[in-house]
Amino acid sequence: MVVDTFAFPGAIPVDYSMAGRCCVVLDVLRATTCMTTALAHGAQRILPVAEVEEALALRAAAEEPVLLCGERGAVRISGFDAGNSPLEFTEEAVRGRTLVMTTTNGTRAILAASGAARILIGCMRNAQATAQRALEAGLPVTLLCAGTAGRYSMEDVLAAGAILAAMGAEADDLGQTARILWEQHKTDPIPLLRHTRHTQRLIALGMEDDVQFCMEPSVTDTVPEYRDGAVKLPGNP
Amino acid sequence: MVVDTFAFPGAIPVDYSMAGRCCVVLDVLRATTCMTTALAHGAQRILPVAEVEEALALRAAAEEPVLLCGERGAVRISGFDAGNSPLEFTEEAVRGRTLVMTTTNGTRAILAASGAARILIGCMRNAQATAQRALEAGLPVTLLCAGTAGRYSMEDVLAAGAILAAMGAEADDLGQTARILWEQHKTDPIPLLRHTRHTQRLIALGMEDDVQFCMEPSVTDTVPEYRDGAVKLPGNP
Repeated sequence: MVVDTFAFPGAIPVDYSMAGRCCVVLDVLRATTCMTTALAHGAQRILPVAEVEEALALRAAAEEPVLLCGERGAVRISGFDAGNSPLEFTEEAVRGRTLVMTTTNGTRAILAASGAARILIGCMRNAQATAQRALEAGLPVTLLCAGTAGRYSMEDVLAAGAILAAMGAEADDLGQTARILWEQHKTDPIPLLRHTRHTQRLIALGMEDDVQFCMEPSVTDTVPEYRDGAVKLPGNP
Repeated sequence: MVVDTFAFPGAIPVDYSMAGRCCVVLDVLRATTCMTTALAHGAQRILPVAEVEEALALRAAAEEPVLLCGERGAVRISGFDAGNSPLEFTEEAVRGRTLVMTTTNGTRAILAASGAARILIGCMRNAQATAQRALEAGLPVTLLCAGTAGRYSMEDVLAAGAILAAMGAEADDLGQTARILWEQHKTDPIPLLRHTRHTQRLIALGMEDDVQFCMEPSVTDTVPEYRDGAVKLPGNP
């Protein structure tokens, strides 16, 4: 079975069907890394929404206090409780809580995957565990990178390569490229990213620690899933 | 100036403007290799058209005899004079003639570039010369890969890498990936392609010689241009 890899949601052919597939969504810098980190630190669930207005409306309607998180242009949205840095999602900040999250690329990618039978939230930090979970699903697999502003983004493709390598699966042309990148840079991925668009922007904003954190490969077994409108752990209600 | 690289026409963002740019169109297997080879062998001009019916109509309306060439699914179109193998475009077959050509991916990519100020026809065989011509144009540069059926295709990205390396220009994330592929495989690109989709199809159809020919890097200085509906050499009327 050949695993399909797409560099961003708009790269999915119009006649491509997600039905019956296991789709892994990757937005390494930083949405899916944030989600993985928040759930690993005990968050109850994350509600990803496309627009700031939806996030505000969800908070207003919620019966329990929710944590509002998200960014536009990599910067925390005014009035929100948190931005899009995984370092903000400490156990103290998130344990037992519901997060409402809106990010530029990651949220859109999750919504683009919504026809899939299973939607896994992947990143570099859970690459190995995500590969395992995707294999266990027993379904054809799609790796859907979020990309950056509708374009190919190196860090997501690199994480796709890490997952493909761990899966040992046959890959399409982009997946083969991703594996080459990964095999060549797995011992230290940071230099590869130093001249890429998204990393350069985060470094310019003083967020180099985020990049370091997001690029640590396979340090957690937490693999969130998206179902019924929420990102959560398989065991969570 | 950062060179933009797109893996296929549908990967161009909707708000991206080709105006004022020099766009290099790459369909290594095999349309742009055919065009380069035909013009290097003395063809007068090539009229790329999207549909078989258009090609037939152009032949019917032509005052001089034209050579009808093209493929669907890598196979010569029934009733056409030639398919899409560069080995068919010998000097004997093409010298002084007008070719009407319709191919699945290459023709579409040329039409997608039609808003650009200059449109160069690039391939692996003219990579170095194309890089030189793109630099001389003095315009921002876009490398537009044709891809295969609306998806990323390794051989086109590899040729983009060869051109970027020869240009010595700054590249976006996909261009950086392309350069890594190229630097790693420039002494012998064939093994890299052996498991890719398009190459596998051509080999299955007995066209391995085509792949060998198309992947020879920088063996010709011929760089066709597309203008006024025709692909021709800068000097040709």
